[in-house]
Amino acid sequence: MKLKLKNVFLAYFLVSIAGLLYALVQLAAEQLRQKDLRISQLQAELRRPPPAPAQPPEPEALPTIYVVTPTYARYGLWCTQESFGVEVRDGHELEEQGRLVQKAELVRLSQTLSLVPRLHWLLVEDAEGPTPLVSGLLAASGLLFTHLVVLTPKAQRLREGEPGWVHPRGVEQRNKALDWLRGRGGAVGGEKDPPPPGTQGVVYFADDDNTYSRELFEEMRWTRGVSVWPVGLVGGLRFEGPQVQDGRVVGFHTAWEPNRPFPVDMAGFAVALPLLLAKPNAQFDSTAPRGHLESSLLSHLVDPKDLEPRAANCTRVLVWHTRTEKPKMKQEEQLQRQGRGSDPAVEV
Amino acid sequence: MKLKLKNVFLAYFLVSIAGLLYALVQLAAEQLRQKDLRISQLQAELRRPPPAPAQPPEPEALPTIYVVTPTYARYGLWCTQESFGVEVRDGHELEEQGRLVQKAELVRLSQTLSLVPRLHWLLVEDAEGPTPLVSGLLAASGLLFTHLVVLTPKAQRLREGEPGWVHPRGVEQRNKALDWLRGRGGAVGGEKDPPPPGTQGVVYFADDDNTYSRELFEEMRWTRGVSVWPVGLVGGLRFEGPQVQDGRVVGFHTAWEPNRPFPVDMAGFAVALPLLLAKPNAQFDSTAPRGHLESSLLSHLVDPKDLEPRAANCTRVLVWHTRTEKPKMKQEEQLQRQGRGSDPAVEV
Repeated sequence: MKLKLKNVFLAYFLVSIAGLLYALVQLAAEQLRQKDLRISQLQAELRRPPPAPAQPPEPEALPTIYVVTPTYARYGLWCTQESFGVEVRDGHELEEQGRLVQKAELVRLSQTLSLVPRLHWLLVEDAEGPTPLVSGLLAASGLLFTHLVVLTPKAQRLREGEPGWVHPRGVEQRNKALDWLRGRGGAVGGEKDPPPPGTQGVVYFADDDNTYSRELFEEMRWTRGVSVWPVGLVGGLRFEGPQVQDGRVVGFHTAWEPNRPFPVDMAGFAVALPLLLAKPNAQFDSTAPRGHLESSLLSHLVDPKDLEPRAANCTRVLVWHTRTEKPKMKQEEQLQRQGRGSDPAVEV
Repeated sequence: MKLKLKNVFLAYFLVSIAGLLYALVQLAAEQLRQKDLRISQLQAELRRPPPAPAQPPEPEALPTIYVVTPTYARYGLWCTQESFGVEVRDGHELEEQGRLVQKAELVRLSQTLSLVPRLHWLLVEDAEGPTPLVSGLLAASGLLFTHLVVLTPKAQRLREGEPGWVHPRGVEQRNKALDWLRGRGGAVGGEKDPPPPGTQGVVYFADDDNTYSRELFEEMRWTRGVSVWPVGLVGGLRFEGPQVQDGRVVGFHTAWEPNRPFPVDMAGFAVALPLLLAKPNAQFDSTAPRGHLESSLLSHLVDPKDLEPRAANCTRVLVWHTRTEKPKMKQEEQLQRQGRGSDPAVEV
């Protein structure tokens, strides 16, 4: 009986140990399974792509677009009420009043350019020195920029009553930008170092009153030599532009001297930066006959048959030669005479 | 001896069971520790902030800016060479040619608006139905938009030789946009449902030829009633705008009828959406005398002393009343007569 009880105890002991072991193993296995599940959940969460950013990150490999814009300072007009009555009557009325839209046009253009990645704005003032208006606008633009200044020589400026084509405008300023690109310095603000050797880029001459579709800049970005496209509302036509057959430029749609070497508007072409640097003498000629300013640069750079047609073989208009009306200032003059002119401290 | 051996066995058995249990517990605990470590590592990785997107995510809490733009269709001009010679000579020459800049101006404005978060463009065509030019432009703009159409009644259209102020332009179109905002439908493209009840927003009337700084839109976004600011190059002045003392509007700088109830330009104010919805009869009056169109809406909405001055107490000009010149089409006419006009298949 004594032994039997011991055996029962032993059996009970063994069974309970086995049960305990089994329970422990099950418990551990269950905990491990739960941890494994949590781990795989967390790993899945980590693999999930992050929320897409608003814009794709800017690829460093994109060629830079150098946009050259000449702009005309106001020579201090409107800065004092006293100067008003004088300046607008000394034979520059038309020209001076046109400059009232300078800030509006630069704001509009700078906002368009801010939509384009990898863009460097070369803004060249026609002035004796940098003006606060332009310096302030550039600083606030958020753009990568270089501020240049060169005064148009008196002999090349328009005189009273002369039509705009007697002296092409912005020649000195565009050449100043070419000088800077070629390492000849001259920056008065913004990025002062020229592009380092080997920089991939393209140069475009964008006046401040034209209208540019953002698509235009992607058309010109991969220019190898000189690329071309149509320009709307120019030359008295709905549009001017290259005629293309089998992917090559075979002629030009224009009404004005179709036999010019390059009958294209300033807004209708872009030049690869390496090509411009390889031809250090290529620049605009301020003595070029009317309508030949573009040819004076391009003749150094490319044969017309090698022009690269863009914008769907030159069938899409992505830039318009818009012109802003000169604002009328009759009421301003009247109020100024009464001492109630617009507050000169407010920049317009 | 026999019994002792059994005891040894039993002791050995108990010790080994205990050892096994201990080893098992340690093993399980170690595995659990490792899993815990992995879990905390993964959780730390998940807590790490994602790489910052190029732009901060758009806060849903920003009030929406509803920008209302009337635009003028070309009534099929330039669509065929045949129609050219006819249409420009039937007394609408000036007006029709002005419409040549429609696409350029809408491209320019749409690109400016694309810089503004939480913006909804209400583009209202003055036409019998939606035109392909405008529909295509809206679809390509990337903007949230609603396309509306209403034809100006013949009696309110300008006749040959009439100056622009005889009939204010865009009245029917702006009222059509107000109708849509008030749930009266009429959308022909884009977002067709009006803002749901309780939407926080502000309504701004932006013509397509003005120049807008992107900063202007942030000035108007938190308008409670009616906000105001200066407008550049308008009314024959450098700028027109409210005069502010101690943060309140106490008068207006303007040369034209300073005693109008609201001597402000269309581009110089914005209205909170809830206020417009609370006054269902507030709209523009096409019979308002010259210069009183803005007052015809605002008189329903606000007392002049409650206008909210913006743009640094109305000392900063952030919008300019620029006007685009009508492009000259003399050469186009000549080439058309020779059968060599600009390709009508190319949209300009």
